[in-house]
Amino acid sequence: MTSNDPYVALLEHSKETEALGQVAGLLSWDQEAVMPHKGADARSEQAGAMSSVIHARRSDPRMAEWLDAIDASTLDAAGRANVRLLRQNHERAIRVPGALATELAKTTARAHQIWAEAREANDVAAFLPTLKKVIELTREQASCLSEEAQSPYDALIDLYEPGATAQSIGEIFGRLRTGLVDLRGRIAESNVEIPRLGGHFPKAAQMALTEELAATYGYDRDAGRVDLVVHPFCSGTRNDVRITTRVDENDPFNCLFSTIHETGHALYEQGLDPDLVWQPAGWSVSMGVHESQSRLCENQIGRSAAFAEFLFPRMQAHFSDFGLASAQALYRAANHVRSGYIRTEADEVHYNLHIMLRFELERALISGDLAVDDLEAAWNDQFAADFGCEVDVPANGVLQDVHWSAGLFGYFPTYSLGNIYAAELFAAMRSALPDLDTGIARGDLADAVGWLRTHVHRPGSIHTPTEVIAKACDHAPTEQPLLAYLNAKFGDLYGV
Amino acid sequence: MTSNDPYVALLEHSKETEALGQVAGLLSWDQEAVMPHKGADARSEQAGAMSSVIHARRSDPRMAEWLDAIDASTLDAAGRANVRLLRQNHERAIRVPGALATELAKTTARAHQIWAEAREANDVAAFLPTLKKVIELTREQASCLSEEAQSPYDALIDLYEPGATAQSIGEIFGRLRTGLVDLRGRIAESNVEIPRLGGHFPKAAQMALTEELAATYGYDRDAGRVDLVVHPFCSGTRNDVRITTRVDENDPFNCLFSTIHETGHALYEQGLDPDLVWQPAGWSVSMGVHESQSRLCENQIGRSAAFAEFLFPRMQAHFSDFGLASAQALYRAANHVRSGYIRTEADEVHYNLHIMLRFELERALISGDLAVDDLEAAWNDQFAADFGCEVDVPANGVLQDVHWSAGLFGYFPTYSLGNIYAAELFAAMRSALPDLDTGIARGDLADAVGWLRTHVHRPGSIHTPTEVIAKACDHAPTEQPLLAYLNAKFGDLYGV
Repeated sequence: MTSNDPYVALLEHSKETEALGQVAGLLSWDQEAVMPHKGADARSEQAGAMSSVIHARRSDPRMAEWLDAIDASTLDAAGRANVRLLRQNHERAIRVPGALATELAKTTARAHQIWAEAREANDVAAFLPTLKKVIELTREQASCLSEEAQSPYDALIDLYEPGATAQSIGEIFGRLRTGLVDLRGRIAESNVEIPRLGGHFPKAAQMALTEELAATYGYDRDAGRVDLVVHPFCSGTRNDVRITTRVDENDPFNCLFSTIHETGHALYEQGLDPDLVWQPAGWSVSMGVHESQSRLCENQIGRSAAFAEFLFPRMQAHFSDFGLASAQALYRAANHVRSGYIRTEADEVHYNLHIMLRFELERALISGDLAVDDLEAAWNDQFAADFGCEVDVPANGVLQDVHWSAGLFGYFPTYSLGNIYAAELFAAMRSALPDLDTGIARGDLADAVGWLRTHVHRPGSIHTPTEVIAKACDHAPTEQPLLAYLNAKFGDLYGV
Repeated sequence: MTSNDPYVALLEHSKETEALGQVAGLLSWDQEAVMPHKGADARSEQAGAMSSVIHARRSDPRMAEWLDAIDASTLDAAGRANVRLLRQNHERAIRVPGALATELAKTTARAHQIWAEAREANDVAAFLPTLKKVIELTREQASCLSEEAQSPYDALIDLYEPGATAQSIGEIFGRLRTGLVDLRGRIAESNVEIPRLGGHFPKAAQMALTEELAATYGYDRDAGRVDLVVHPFCSGTRNDVRITTRVDENDPFNCLFSTIHETGHALYEQGLDPDLVWQPAGWSVSMGVHESQSRLCENQIGRSAAFAEFLFPRMQAHFSDFGLASAQALYRAANHVRSGYIRTEADEVHYNLHIMLRFELERALISGDLAVDDLEAAWNDQFAADFGCEVDVPANGVLQDVHWSAGLFGYFPTYSLGNIYAAELFAAMRSALPDLDTGIARGDLADAVGWLRTHVHRPGSIHTPTEVIAKACDHAPTEQPLLAYLNAKFGDLYGV
């Protein structure tokens, strides 16, 4: 029975749509974490069917009727955000034909395995036909989505980072790049030796420590789980937020920092305002802000000298000898700077250069300035220019990331926005919490996470992403705190 | 774009509905196998939303239009089965209001955890309000479903075992009970000593052996997975069929035979005709026939003297000493007959007595002859009468099974029908395969499973359940082969 109150009817409808969206998210988690290999074809049909159902609900003409009948001036801030976000969702849905949404969901569900196999085999040609299809469908989606005077790529960015544009991102990236290239150059000249981890790190011990670290950050294990995957991610919301990790028995940093990263994402979802459950105002606000939570947990806290004080004895408890003599050595080892092929293994200095490369390439793919057939060459050329070495195999180059197979164009820049926001937020947190390092060194992160909860998690989507950051930091976000943080930290570590 | 051909349009529509049904099934698997504890509330909303979507599709008035426009005489047997099954699905759907279907799905999703906690705490009162609600909704559903002159309970049975009725089941159960009570009485008088397993059986070794056994039966691990749960089950179809098991480190039979049982279910789903993918004619035909596959694999093959020849050295390889000196001792230990509280742990002689108890109780619950408040007392009285001992705690009595919390009324009798069908099928298989025992003793089950594939798996739902069994065995199914099998096997084992 639908309510006569249009606002109530709208929220009831949205609740069911959101529940279905959660189911679609679970299908993705399942596919990457536990689905048997041969399940891919049926999963593609299932994902397509879910997409079709969700699209039909989002484009339901009753939504427009309810939205038009609501007097937003009678609503509080959360209510106005609900109306704003549901109108945006509805308008996006009616712009994209249902058949296109379904085909995109089916194609990307199937593309995942094709990409994974191509990457395993270092066979770009095996992935190209699928990638072409995904890009063709994504470009079609983007031109449906783009409003007057909005570029298709901007329409995609807006899905992940509402309000951001390629131009605004390009400007901030330009300034960031200058600072990073300068810092990287100085580090390359440095003679400072960074100690290295050594030894064998059994999977079981890594998983035990990683669960302990997630708990240290406040991850609620009764409202989540930890699984092993090829490419770690976080999935779900509120009381069912699942993180994933990976294990390299020669390098525990991979597992530990990846887990902390996903824990940062999970804390955001678990920390959303319970009073706004099943309301768009209670959703996480953007991928950039999401990434700020994961990167702040991983880098500003996890790779800090203070956290090394806590982590060192925990590593001693789980691994006998690991080649490092002190917390200070651990801090240095965890911040070793070196150029490398793989984005997800990049240090803080190089990470954003990886993102900028992808940003420029995908921008050109969507605009049509770059043909898919020319993508690998363009990647390799740009990589050589940016990183000073040649890509050896496609798995270390154009095939390394899952995103494009999933149709996630416009998503990559949110990673760097996340780093920028993280540095802003951490600076504000430090001002607010004078004893921050003392707590971190004890593994007591209650104050730090509490600050994030208050300033980022709880506010959800009541405001826009930049408003959330600006309110938390008392000014509009810029790249300056990130550059200042990196220059201070790595300048000190490398004596430059 | 919907096809102009009504049959094509109907099948396209059905394919998407089936894909959504698979997603709903995955939600259940996830809930029992991997979902975090606190996810239950959101899962209830998700299950309700999926049920609502699926119900709307099944009751879509276009289905009636397509069905009416199809000239079934132009179709082959599979096509006619598709039309018959989709008409039945549609007619059932339009009889049950969507709101009721949704409420039932939400209620049972939430009931699962309430039941599990009540069972853990041996607290019937904690489960009663939920059970009342489930029964109230199920009775409502049953009276919507029941056609003229059909009892509500028969309408429920028909969901799981098309064509069966409480009366037909009651008659066959009556004859079966007489034979079982007689056999049980003779065994109780026997002085034959049955050797017992002893020792400690580490979880990892049990899981390794259990995976090996699943492979021995032909379970395709690339199209499935094995997880640990409290109550083992099998979920999914065709290329994604997941089995679950449990481990008791004092009793490996629990894990091994439970896995073989679920493998039997999985073989059916993995063995369905690939030419009938996404067609109702290609679905498994009934829960009774499904259970015949699991029970035949578990009992007629798995607990046979021949299989013990294969299993004994495999157990020696995985467990050092387990207190049994020979394959013959293993065979005897695996067929120890004793009265017990728990259905899923019951031997072949007692198992169907457990089912008959539940059949009578749920029949009375649905008809209204038994009030939910009186259920525990009725269970305990009947158990004492049937098994000759008093129920000690509710977890060993009325709270032991998951089914009623899931709204599965009318499902229990299919377990005994499965045992009856299994004995019929095994007798026919033995006639067709003179060297059956030789293969089983070698762990070569290709012929046995191949026979099932040809006579049961491939035919899917082209015919009715009793037709499938009758075609495979050349006569209508009766309880006689089951009684003959049990009398021969246990008469020999116990010298009675």
